[in-house]
Amino acid sequence: MPPSETLSLPPTLPALFAAHLPPSSPSSCPFVTLTFATSLDSSLSLAPGTRTTLSGPQSKTMTHYLRSQHAAILIGVGTALADDPGLNCRIEGGESPRPIVLDPKGRWAFGEEAKVLQLARRGEGKAPFVFVGTGAEVENRRKDLLERHGGKYVFVERDDRGRFKWTDVLGAVGKEGLASVMVEGGGEVINSLLKAPENELVDSVIITIAPTWLGQGGVVVSPERTVDANGSPRPPARLTEVEWHPLGEDIVLCGKLQR
Amino acid sequence: MPPSETLSLPPTLPALFAAHLPPSSPSSCPFVTLTFATSLDSSLSLAPGTRTTLSGPQSKTMTHYLRSQHAAILIGVGTALADDPGLNCRIEGGESPRPIVLDPKGRWAFGEEAKVLQLARRGEGKAPFVFVGTGAEVENRRKDLLERHGGKYVFVERDDRGRFKWTDVLGAVGKEGLASVMVEGGGEVINSLLKAPENELVDSVIITIAPTWLGQGGVVVSPERTVDANGSPRPPARLTEVEWHPLGEDIVLCGKLQR
Repeated sequence: MPPSETLSLPPTLPALFAAHLPPSSPSSCPFVTLTFATSLDSSLSLAPGTRTTLSGPQSKTMTHYLRSQHAAILIGVGTALADDPGLNCRIEGGESPRPIVLDPKGRWAFGEEAKVLQLARRGEGKAPFVFVGTGAEVENRRKDLLERHGGKYVFVERDDRGRFKWTDVLGAVGKEGLASVMVEGGGEVINSLLKAPENELVDSVIITIAPTWLGQGGVVVSPERTVDANGSPRPPARLTEVEWHPLGEDIVLCGKLQR
Repeated sequence: MPPSETLSLPPTLPALFAAHLPPSSPSSCPFVTLTFATSLDSSLSLAPGTRTTLSGPQSKTMTHYLRSQHAAILIGVGTALADDPGLNCRIEGGESPRPIVLDPKGRWAFGEEAKVLQLARRGEGKAPFVFVGTGAEVENRRKDLLERHGGKYVFVERDDRGRFKWTDVLGAVGKEGLASVMVEGGGEVINSLLKAPENELVDSVIITIAPTWLGQGGVVVSPERTVDANGSPRPPARLTEVEWHPLGEDIVLCGKLQR
């Protein structure tokens, strides 16, 4: 790895997140950390399919540290298509997580130039496990490409609308022997996991907020609502055991979803 | 004032905000502080016309302290109609600001039971200056009611769409001898002041963020975008000289809009 790509870990950083990361003796169901960076108006990016840099350099180091503390890192296919992300850990000596890409319809037409495969070839990251829907067509050459790099396709049931259920996804993560997973994006994945009752599956939430507005029309994190017994809208989720850590100009919020 | 309504000011609180409040020797144009509380998904409330309590008790004390440091407090008519707000300062010994309600079409049909007038009668707050559009009809009995309490109607030009321009509104605030104004809500007022080029009129921004999501369908703070020379969307505003202060479970963000 070129020296400019390597991140060095500030010695004070791990203690900040110790209470918000997977335990060393895991349970059968993977520990789920939901983490993302937004603007003040809760946008992940200016538009779907656009990568918008929101947070500063310290936040990047934090994200890579968090990756080193999870067995897997999970994104939706929209993010894979938009960002061509590396999904590795660039902290010196840190272990990269296993990338998982949720691709129910088998849309991700990657080639060997995909960044995540380039990194795997260079020993700087792991090849992805691509979760596709049962019955989705995958090309043999792409299956071979994945497997040559140490990755694979994993088939998961879809519902009537062609979507995965989170219980099935996390069940499959557990079956692969991955004890913890960091869910990083994009908007659809995050919103589907923040809404009730799916949010009961989330163990830890770590959000970076940058002091900027992206304005109307961005990719917004805002979960669907539930209603109370009278049919009135109810806030879908609240954090408890909250900690706020300033990081450069940004703030990092750690908490657990209130049950 | 009943003792339960009085707020006592923690001695450490003023120093936190000293750099973000109006100067003691003001200029001719009023000092404008934009302040509001949102959820993590940038909502002010669950729905238009609904009051949603977002922030904790410490944030309330802060808000009342900020009110004591401004000559005026400004809201839109939607907030006046939805919340029937008091707009006074409940800090012991703190001076209440002059309430200003922006009501271009003269929609606010208040009576003597309006909270802001009740407080004025009890000497616990000031009666409002209601900014109505030139040509808007106001009832004489309501004009008398306002004036008996020390308030009044102030007539301000409207544009083709029946809206005020911020330069006209702030000009009128200045003409009334009010050297500083705290803009508190609601969504339409905040978004119109955060967008370019109006946001050049804002001197200070103080936002409280509560660790909760209100979900899709809320009253969202997210300014309109501008586009760059290529027609691509551009973030409408960013803060600089940023400070983050945890306050109970909430975080308070202070900053200035980047020029």
